[in-house]
Amino acid sequence: MTRGTIYGVGLGPGCQDLMSVRADRLIRQASHVAYFRKRGRTGHARSIVEGLLSDTVIELPMEYPLTTEIPVEDPRYNECLAKFYGECVAQLSEIAGAGRDPVVLCEGDPFFYGSFMHLYRRLWGRVPVSVVPGITGMSAAWTATGQPMTWGDDVMTVLMGTLPEETLAKRIAETDALVVMKIGRHLDKLRRALARAGREDEAWLIEYAAMPEERVMPFREAGDSAPYFSILLIHGNGRRP
Amino acid sequence: MTRGTIYGVGLGPGCQDLMSVRADRLIRQASHVAYFRKRGRTGHARSIVEGLLSDTVIELPMEYPLTTEIPVEDPRYNECLAKFYGECVAQLSEIAGAGRDPVVLCEGDPFFYGSFMHLYRRLWGRVPVSVVPGITGMSAAWTATGQPMTWGDDVMTVLMGTLPEETLAKRIAETDALVVMKIGRHLDKLRRALARAGREDEAWLIEYAAMPEERVMPFREAGDSAPYFSILLIHGNGRRP
Repeated sequence: MTRGTIYGVGLGPGCQDLMSVRADRLIRQASHVAYFRKRGRTGHARSIVEGLLSDTVIELPMEYPLTTEIPVEDPRYNECLAKFYGECVAQLSEIAGAGRDPVVLCEGDPFFYGSFMHLYRRLWGRVPVSVVPGITGMSAAWTATGQPMTWGDDVMTVLMGTLPEETLAKRIAETDALVVMKIGRHLDKLRRALARAGREDEAWLIEYAAMPEERVMPFREAGDSAPYFSILLIHGNGRRP
Repeated sequence: MTRGTIYGVGLGPGCQDLMSVRADRLIRQASHVAYFRKRGRTGHARSIVEGLLSDTVIELPMEYPLTTEIPVEDPRYNECLAKFYGECVAQLSEIAGAGRDPVVLCEGDPFFYGSFMHLYRRLWGRVPVSVVPGITGMSAAWTATGQPMTWGDDVMTVLMGTLPEETLAKRIAETDALVVMKIGRHLDKLRRALARAGREDEAWLIEYAAMPEERVMPFREAGDSAPYFSILLIHGNGRRP
């Protein structure tokens, strides 16, 4: 019996027809699909593929053992996640070992700040794995603003909202084009960092880019919090004919 | 008669099944497709869609009036390009004015260092334009390396090889994950910049990512020049469970 391949498939920003043709085909043909989700939720990755799966598909929801119960700094946080990832890997490897090709649904692009990478590095060299890139959430976000993102020799910087205010302010001041992801509870800190960099008026906030609830607004009109699927950006402004 | 819409469609990195489902559908149904190319060439965007176009499609190659004859610094360079873009816009607007929906083929993602942006900003507010994001060449490049690109709160910086050596060295030293595009004739300068940043051994060179000629190599094994479709990258190394 031939060993199967585990596919890490980028779903893109969250709109079915922004998946790649390859992703669409792999998902429709899949015998097994796996996806991360919080306990008791449908899971965003799963909801993106609603209606595409075959009638006989076997679904493997991989439910995070924690979300905010243990602080990130606590060593038990990593231990707990590592055990969880180990179990996911064992399950996927078993399916591939039985000659099937399980598809792991990955929001955005699997290798760009994706959860799949935690499985990938444990599978690598042990089981055949194939990764399908996807359209990133940030591409959907700048497309939603209706303004080109980077021109000529603009420098683009991608930051996470989880970084310290000091770091954010310095990096925001020094770049041409800017993307900030993982904003959620860090909105106030970001507002202060933008002000310190003198760039509040250039920033845009995009919520749910490419999804039905998509909203685009100047950052100064943002409220006190932003949904998980929010991206802040500043457009580049390089030379142009 | 209803006015048509001009579509700027991201083709992704250069492999047909890495186009989005939406791009695939728009291109197959198109009555008119436009694409940039150098004089006397097929054009890379055009070659990506080979075999997908309808039998009755009208093709509009938009041929660059210059490539290297006039130096970028010469004011005539910008004048010449601006005139060319103006002519392209006039032609596309006329088609849309006649109620058709011309599709402009864009390599990668249209708003990410794309030529289409030069048409877009001239069309904006005058003719309906719809932009379809695509998988970027850099996503295909890091996928090709088989190593995840960005973890946790890694900072990612995107640079153009056309920047001065000093700028490159400083930016390379200060980032976690790095992408350098537009490498071509700037390989030696990049090698020096990487050395000044002390990061030569972390860098990878990816040629023709996601295309049949794809090659991945440690940057130190690169030769004296690299093809146009080359990307240099350094993987991030953030916290991970």
